[in-house]
Amino acid sequence: MDYIEVLGLAAAILTTAGYVPQVYKTWRDKSTKDISLTTYLVLFIGVVLWLTYGILISSLPVTLANGITAFLLLFMLILKFKYK
Amino acid sequence: MDYIEVLGLAAAILTTAGYVPQVYKTWRDKSTKDISLTTYLVLFIGVVLWLTYGILISSLPVTLANGITAFLLLFMLILKFKYK
Repeated sequence: MDYIEVLGLAAAILTTAGYVPQVYKTWRDKSTKDISLTTYLVLFIGVVLWLTYGILISSLPVTLANGITAFLLLFMLILKFKYK
Repeated sequence: MDYIEVLGLAAAILTTAGYVPQVYKTWRDKSTKDISLTTYLVLFIGVVLWLTYGILISSLPVTLANGITAFLLLFMLILKFKYK
């Protein structure tokens, strides 16, 4: 793996794991007033498209990263509806 | 451009433009209590890595999408610090 691929892997890990603190904070505080529902809906649709794209080009990193991100975004949407 | 590339372009547009409603809501409401600083810091670093990756592999879509996203995330960070 050359340094450019390592850079892409690090970027994928950060832009996936990055949502975990927000999910934890929302789950703990049970408050979503400041959180934009539109943002999480649009991001979720976009990430599902990335997931489909990753499957179609048979790229495991793209598929895996966006699969996990889709799950985290879906969890945020559920919390947003639950704690409107 | 085949349908897979169109899918990738649509995914890039959604996961970039998706942040605009959150930036607008935060700018309008001047309230960031429910927003995780850690999430936006980690996402920002990750997107800057994606931007660097896009430049290194000479991919205009990856560079453009992540350049715009980095700008939106930076704006969110400024709002988060301003309206702690």
